[in-house]
Amino acid sequence: MNILDLIVGKPIKTSDERAEQVGMQAGIPIFGLDALSSAAYGPEAALSLLIPLGLLGVQYIIPISIAIITLLVIVYFSYLQTIAAYPSGGGSYTVARFNLGAFPSLLAAAALLTDYILTAAVGISAGVGALVSAVPSLQKYTVWLCVGILLIITILNLRGVRDAGVAFMLPTYLFVGTLLITIVGGLVRVALSGGHPVPITPLPSPPAMTATVTFWLLLKVFASGCTALTGVEAVSNGVKAFREPAVKNAQRTLTVIIFLLAVLLAGISYLVKVYGIAATDPGQPGYQSILSMLIAAVFGKGVFYYLTIASILFVLSLSANTAFADFPRLCRAISQNNYLPHSFGYRGRRLVYTYGIVVLAFLTCFLLVVFGGVTDRLIPLYAVGAFLAFTLSQFGMVMHWRKNRGPHWIKSAFVNGLGGFVTGITVIVVLIAKFAEGAWITVIFIPLLIVLFRIIRRHYHMVTVATGCADAVVPSRLDDVPIVIVPIEHWSRIFKQALEFATGLSPEIMAVHVEPGDHSELLREEWERYVEQPYRAAGAVPPKLVTLPSPYRFIVVPIVQYVLELSKNHPGRRIIVVIPALVENRWYEYFLHNQRARLLEWTLLARGNERIFTVSAPYYLSE
Amino acid sequence: MNILDLIVGKPIKTSDERAEQVGMQAGIPIFGLDALSSAAYGPEAALSLLIPLGLLGVQYIIPISIAIITLLVIVYFSYLQTIAAYPSGGGSYTVARFNLGAFPSLLAAAALLTDYILTAAVGISAGVGALVSAVPSLQKYTVWLCVGILLIITILNLRGVRDAGVAFMLPTYLFVGTLLITIVGGLVRVALSGGHPVPITPLPSPPAMTATVTFWLLLKVFASGCTALTGVEAVSNGVKAFREPAVKNAQRTLTVIIFLLAVLLAGISYLVKVYGIAATDPGQPGYQSILSMLIAAVFGKGVFYYLTIASILFVLSLSANTAFADFPRLCRAISQNNYLPHSFGYRGRRLVYTYGIVVLAFLTCFLLVVFGGVTDRLIPLYAVGAFLAFTLSQFGMVMHWRKNRGPHWIKSAFVNGLGGFVTGITVIVVLIAKFAEGAWITVIFIPLLIVLFRIIRRHYHMVTVATGCADAVVPSRLDDVPIVIVPIEHWSRIFKQALEFATGLSPEIMAVHVEPGDHSELLREEWERYVEQPYRAAGAVPPKLVTLPSPYRFIVVPIVQYVLELSKNHPGRRIIVVIPALVENRWYEYFLHNQRARLLEWTLLARGNERIFTVSAPYYLSE
Repeated sequence: MNILDLIVGKPIKTSDERAEQVGMQAGIPIFGLDALSSAAYGPEAALSLLIPLGLLGVQYIIPISIAIITLLVIVYFSYLQTIAAYPSGGGSYTVARFNLGAFPSLLAAAALLTDYILTAAVGISAGVGALVSAVPSLQKYTVWLCVGILLIITILNLRGVRDAGVAFMLPTYLFVGTLLITIVGGLVRVALSGGHPVPITPLPSPPAMTATVTFWLLLKVFASGCTALTGVEAVSNGVKAFREPAVKNAQRTLTVIIFLLAVLLAGISYLVKVYGIAATDPGQPGYQSILSMLIAAVFGKGVFYYLTIASILFVLSLSANTAFADFPRLCRAISQNNYLPHSFGYRGRRLVYTYGIVVLAFLTCFLLVVFGGVTDRLIPLYAVGAFLAFTLSQFGMVMHWRKNRGPHWIKSAFVNGLGGFVTGITVIVVLIAKFAEGAWITVIFIPLLIVLFRIIRRHYHMVTVATGCADAVVPSRLDDVPIVIVPIEHWSRIFKQALEFATGLSPEIMAVHVEPGDHSELLREEWERYVEQPYRAAGAVPPKLVTLPSPYRFIVVPIVQYVLELSKNHPGRRIIVVIPALVENRWYEYFLHNQRARLLEWTLLARGNERIFTVSAPYYLSE
Repeated sequence: MNILDLIVGKPIKTSDERAEQVGMQAGIPIFGLDALSSAAYGPEAALSLLIPLGLLGVQYIIPISIAIITLLVIVYFSYLQTIAAYPSGGGSYTVARFNLGAFPSLLAAAALLTDYILTAAVGISAGVGALVSAVPSLQKYTVWLCVGILLIITILNLRGVRDAGVAFMLPTYLFVGTLLITIVGGLVRVALSGGHPVPITPLPSPPAMTATVTFWLLLKVFASGCTALTGVEAVSNGVKAFREPAVKNAQRTLTVIIFLLAVLLAGISYLVKVYGIAATDPGQPGYQSILSMLIAAVFGKGVFYYLTIASILFVLSLSANTAFADFPRLCRAISQNNYLPHSFGYRGRRLVYTYGIVVLAFLTCFLLVVFGGVTDRLIPLYAVGAFLAFTLSQFGMVMHWRKNRGPHWIKSAFVNGLGGFVTGITVIVVLIAKFAEGAWITVIFIPLLIVLFRIIRRHYHMVTVATGCADAVVPSRLDDVPIVIVPIEHWSRIFKQALEFATGLSPEIMAVHVEPGDHSELLREEWERYVEQPYRAAGAVPPKLVTLPSPYRFIVVPIVQYVLELSKNHPGRRIIVVIPALVENRWYEYFLHNQRARLLEWTLLARGNERIFTVSAPYYLSE
């Protein structure tokens, strides 16, 4: 227990929950890392599609950014309302469930779960990828670095919400701070130079124009830029993690996150356009990220440049944390409706949903290891899930307003309806634009998840029906003695102890021995001396010794078969199998003794019936 | 069970053991693969040390081969006598145990176990290494190829001795046959050319002479060549695997193996000398193995060349099989003296020692994966173990003759004494010559194994003393009623069933419920309705419902603490914990229900005492 205390922290009482809740300050790093880190890759994703247009392409970044930020604001207002309407935590799943019905909610759930798993894997590998491209000698440790970061994030999350918030605060604020300074610095230079700033570090020559602009290209650029919106959902699922007034705190946190993200996106886009920074091809030598070029253009490659780049790397690899904050909460919400195992609802020693965190860690680790820490190919997959969830959530809110018909419901419904419409269009654009690149996997995976949800729920329903009980207890008749079976290998204190326990249960006892064993000869003698003689001396009927032949040397199988047959021949009678078990002092000592006691118990459980009971009669070496 | 039948084969009755025993024909591939394959690398190992002497070095191969073959013959006579003296299987361990005492036998055991693990790993990786150097495009699959071959060998061995013998027969006889043809062909050419044959495929130019011959160099060459003797031990451990007359069959098998090996070694050495084939440096481009050059020189690079090379590859990678045939038998012999877990003595469904095979497979797999399938660095380690075992075995035989004092005991003792002396010298030479290269690892590992043996034996001794029992059974008094505890979460058929079982055990029943749970409120009502009312109506005292607070949300811990406290407060009374358990139809359904029943049982076993018993009361969904 001490090691667990050290790694995960001491258990926290349920009644001490309040101290674990967070305010805005810690809420931003916990729920905002994913959204804010989008500022680092959203513009990049959009601009790299514009490479074929050459320097002309850079001009399009402004209208596209305006479209994306507008969408962001619409989604923001929608979630602001969602938080108020569902203060116990209302992500797309909850909203869809209450307003659209079971199937849309499962669709949202499946989409979001997929999205979170991908977010975690892509976040970590993107961060490590950036680090590795900065320090190429680390290349061969890519997977280890990924797994190491995953381990740190997992442990921090298992330690509880507050610890995670504290740990991620510094990198988050450093990231936001340095980028804001870059933007302000850039704006000042633009103003001082009359709109034509000269880059301090010269920019690479812009790519040649090899294509003309088409509407479809611009749509694809928009769809790529929209990856900047993933992670906006997070706060709405985690309202309960906030200190009272929870709704206000959650709303404030969301507002700050969205505001910062919008400012960063707008500022970066504007400066990119004014400086004329075209994206470079990541596959080609001389590749530089947009932000790297921008910071170098504004401030040169000094200390500040490296500090900013470092904070970007940090935040990218930690953006996975948002998935870890939300995935377990979402799983718990789903499991409350019996669509996932109930264990997801179990709150561990630090009041977090341990099961969800561990499952996400394993899935992420699996993805990272299978893809060798290079998850670029997963990126196309993950905007689909997020936008599908957005769309369902917004249409759900439209229904919500319609049902409640508050004073300005038409206005609210219109905002959400517009948002749902736009994000719905985005889903379709993203799906079509990225279908061949991998979005088709999502199209297969989400329905499979939904099928899984339904199977799980059906099972739980079946169990509830089968075990539900409105009958009173019927005490056993005391003359209804059970048959007691005690397996024996040779006469020992372990067996003697079990036999003595058995004598307290029933006068009808049978010791069963599988032949041939190492001690079969001796056993007959021992049985005579230690059991039959004392019983006969006391004028009692001794327990029987039954030998079971085992031509195939199996030990457990003959005993189980004997018990099952006995049960068949004595319908209505209870059979108690008393299994003598040697308990070791130390776990590794178990390797020195065969675990037949355990195996016998499991096999009896699996193949037995309700009238067959197994008892472990432990014998302790230490005593 | 069907899958096991398919992979490992149907169980074989103990009484059908005879059909599983093998004769000489199958015995040679099973126990001789390791020794025979030495012909492929023994001369190579010796000659590559002679490279610095240039073409002159090749001349030394004759005296060195004579020395090695002489040693081989001495060792052969020794084991021939050992087989006769210990017909139930007598490797170095048994011989040393009977004649030299416990410590020398453990030394032999540790040396041999180390040797077998290394033999298995080195054999497989040497074979795959040769294959990969022939087909370089397979390079990247090295580890997978190694693991694949390991898997095949493991399964074949699990299928029983006979199946393994049949599977390895063809490659073994192909290997021996093609090499014998090469030797005969070479001798004919030598005779026809008057002692100066012209190679059909020209040989690479011999290396320049860069050193002069020293006694120490020749000793090292001899030590390297001695690796050809590893594997000779195998037959003596496996006498019981032979058909009756087992001793005669085993001796005949050993004779054929040694005869073939001696002929191959002598023939190869002679031809190498006459053709003047110097070894080439494996690290350099243009490397060719001695056998490759020899076969090409005698027959050219035709179909026969490739057939022979293929059979060499095959036999090299299958030479690991000898380790699989012997390691489990040796482990079983050691476990019979309580120095290893008794499970090693368990004969699986196909009458082989399953545990030893599986343990060897895991250890080999570990070595192969850790070293990436390139185990060249392990080669220096493994002659030490084999020769240490030889030496102990031979000195053991000297003591054996002295004790029995048969008619010609002095002669027999002299043969073994000479053998022991020579192999003892070889151990020292090998140790010194290869100490820095890695033999020091053996020097550390063998004593550690011996320490482990002693710890295991001490533990078994302790358990035997602690559980040994010469007391008669003392039946329980029937008025000595136990206290029965039944954990409850909510009222269900599962719990009702367990409670009804409990009522048959004792009138003193307590249901324990951990608070707060999802059903705590409802439970009080249910308890009143379904338990207390019916009992009161019948005029009986109802079981008690005890609620246990759990501030940290643990479920199992409060129940265990309650039971332990109860046991402390009622010394002398038995406590039976009846654990209601839902049994699923399919294994994967277990993920949908928490396994607290199991956890509670384990924790009670681990932390309880001899008066606390756990009962699994199973509830079956299917009924």
